[in-house]
Amino acid sequence: MTTLTATDNSNDWDLLITDANIATMDSNIDAPYGAIENAALAVKDGHIAWLGKQSDLPTFDVLATPTVSAKGQWLTPGLIDCHTHLVFAGSRAEEFEQRLQGVSYEQIAAQGGGIASTVRATREADHEALFVLAKDRLNALYAEGVTTIEIKSGYGLDCENEVKILEVARLLGENHPVDVKTTFLGAHALPPEYKGRSDEYIDLVCNEMLDQIVAANLADAVDVFCENVGFSNEQTRRVFTAAKKHSLPVKCHAEQLSNQHGTELVAEFKGLSADHIEHLDEAGVKAMAAAGTVAVLLPGAFYFLRETKQPPIELLKQYNVPMAISTDFNPGTSPLCSLQLMMNMGCTLFRLTPEETLAGVTCNGAKALGLKDRGELKIGLRADIAHWQISHPAQLSYQLGVNKLLNLWILGRLN
Amino acid sequence: MTTLTATDNSNDWDLLITDANIATMDSNIDAPYGAIENAALAVKDGHIAWLGKQSDLPTFDVLATPTVSAKGQWLTPGLIDCHTHLVFAGSRAEEFEQRLQGVSYEQIAAQGGGIASTVRATREADHEALFVLAKDRLNALYAEGVTTIEIKSGYGLDCENEVKILEVARLLGENHPVDVKTTFLGAHALPPEYKGRSDEYIDLVCNEMLDQIVAANLADAVDVFCENVGFSNEQTRRVFTAAKKHSLPVKCHAEQLSNQHGTELVAEFKGLSADHIEHLDEAGVKAMAAAGTVAVLLPGAFYFLRETKQPPIELLKQYNVPMAISTDFNPGTSPLCSLQLMMNMGCTLFRLTPEETLAGVTCNGAKALGLKDRGELKIGLRADIAHWQISHPAQLSYQLGVNKLLNLWILGRLN
Ligand SMILES: [Zn+2]
Ligand SMILES: [Zn+2]
Repeated sequence: MTTLTATDNSNDWDLLITDANIATMDSNIDAPYGAIENAALAVKDGHIAWLGKQSDLPTFDVLATPTVSAKGQWLTPGLIDCHTHLVFAGSRAEEFEQRLQGVSYEQIAAQGGGIASTVRATREADHEALFVLAKDRLNALYAEGVTTIEIKSGYGLDCENEVKILEVARLLGENHPVDVKTTFLGAHALPPEYKGRSDEYIDLVCNEMLDQIVAANLADAVDVFCENVGFSNEQTRRVFTAAKKHSLPVKCHAEQLSNQHGTELVAEFKGLSADHIEHLDEAGVKAMAAAGTVAVLLPGAFYFLRETKQPPIELLKQYNVPMAISTDFNPGTSPLCSLQLMMNMGCTLFRLTPEETLAGVTCNGAKALGLKDRGELKIGLRADIAHWQISHPAQLSYQLGVNKLLNLWILGRLN
Repeated sequence: MTTLTATDNSNDWDLLITDANIATMDSNIDAPYGAIENAALAVKDGHIAWLGKQSDLPTFDVLATPTVSAKGQWLTPGLIDCHTHLVFAGSRAEEFEQRLQGVSYEQIAAQGGGIASTVRATREADHEALFVLAKDRLNALYAEGVTTIEIKSGYGLDCENEVKILEVARLLGENHPVDVKTTFLGAHALPPEYKGRSDEYIDLVCNEMLDQIVAANLADAVDVFCENVGFSNEQTRRVFTAAKKHSLPVKCHAEQLSNQHGTELVAEFKGLSADHIEHLDEAGVKAMAAAGTVAVLLPGAFYFLRETKQPPIELLKQYNVPMAISTDFNPGTSPLCSLQLMMNMGCTLFRLTPEETLAGVTCNGAKALGLKDRGELKIGLRADIAHWQISHPAQLSYQLGVNKLLNLWILGRLN
């Protein structure tokens, strides 16, 4: 067991958590889950100032520090949901019902359903309405231990409304303890008013939309839905090129329904992640490995769409591509606002181990967002810490329904 | 739209709920979900005294009645989870992890894992420990709108411990607003001490165990796991015969992994339900229809075990067999303590409509427990009422994670 040494011996820690088992998810610690049992962790200025075996705790530091006993239970890094479409209005429940009653996608589309209905409802909703809807969803994730979330735009599909969605996402970040990262996904779908003119729409995305969004600092990354039913590889390249001009990192909804080689493209741009990737081939996996691009697995959409083609998990492991897991929470293909359910589905549907799914929502979720300051419990990183009433970290992926979260610190603070 | 008339015109209702849309689930009302929009509902002595169009509300009754506005949102019957194994100790998370690491069932069984580990932990736990564990699980279901639950024994597998589990279930019922029905499932698995002597164990179940349980009024029904890896059709018949002697209704874990004709057997005994039934054939479906036996579908176990053989939904519909949906919450094959997730899985995995899944956890759940006083919102029935912030009842099956439950009345009382 690795023993870590203190970085700060002055007696001014803000918080000390004792009697803990810590799943650090630090790959330098040679134990499953990077676990340190019978451990303690100290926080100063919102970051981890010390962690290690409790028996190694420098006693002179402890005396004046506010202390919480973890009562022998487990700490993990706060969970990271790295791919969501959290801000939207409208419900697709009736469409869901119609599909189960035998109505075809074509008929639903013809009556204005599908993504068009979400775009319509989102365009009609004002900032406040969208904020209230998104806050309820964020609270549900927060109650499950989520401390960082990514939110994509993509239901506005015009300048005003893409900006509106990202403003709501930024507002959420300012008014909620969970840290919010935003992604501009103007190239999510072709808006009805651009029917037959997708290249012109991509012009709008690359120029007017992106310029406005960058000027207002509304996006931390740029994403494209590269697919037969989305945008072509060439159109995706144009968006990525524009993003690069603004120094924004890129991500890609790639190879979900077919292999459009969006993954190789995002890797070419040293992108943060390729997401979905059920139809990814070995060349794509190699490209990810070479570029350091993370695989974001979205078992909720796989489940909800009743897909049968699995992402190439074995190849991803073989080439050491980090795998993140996320909800892909959205009204069309993953109306499942539970990251813990995704952890179970990662194991049950994709045959990941509980350690791999926990890595998927901690260290690898952080990598998928380009965040180096979180995702593990390690000296110097953010004190985003979930405290669970569990006897083994595998329980987090195994069970669902009885919430085992006891405490959640974000930047060392309970909220 | 049917207009119902008041049964009680004296001005002494205990509660009036106005401005509601009511999914009554009453099949006599000719609308999807038996819905009455712009409706009101009155409660007296824990039961429904009036419901109908709000415009038909007899005004003289309303004046002195405590009134709650449903604010245009939906009421449904309280949900019924008709098949659970809620009372057990121990976790199978580490076994879940081992399986995903490639360890075989045989190796896990050889090291004392599988159901044997749950039996061991449950035998070791006292009433209080089991009560606390079960109460957390029951609270999770209650928070989702559950007002009636069935709890099976089956992890004791000896007299003392089967009695203990059922006593804990009864205690839960006495100390929790949710109404608890109990089922004796002594014939769940062969306890290790009876290895090779299953007929002797069935003797114990039919005589000593059942006698004690009946004497203490601990069971409302009797269940058997009729399967290759459980008990034979002939052994099941012996247990059902013993139950009949005590006038207890029977249920059957039937045709989950193979067709053992347990369904025809439980139908022969005019049993309440046949549960799982993935491998059921048409003869079995006909027998259920003739006997009035309910099909209890358990999509959580189907999902968790990655089954591919679907229950014969079309045949069940063709023969008008009522279909209930339940969690089957248990540590081995369905550690998913969420009835709403089961509603989504009923739609997503079994292609039921949202109306069928809602019927599965209301009116048909009640039928699976032989309860005629609940499961619909209708004059004279229990005022077990869930109030949801939804714009359409299909939302209950479509989405997960953001809890839409606003209020939950059990026997007309908020708790
Ligand atoms: Zn997505
Ligand atoms: Zn069962």
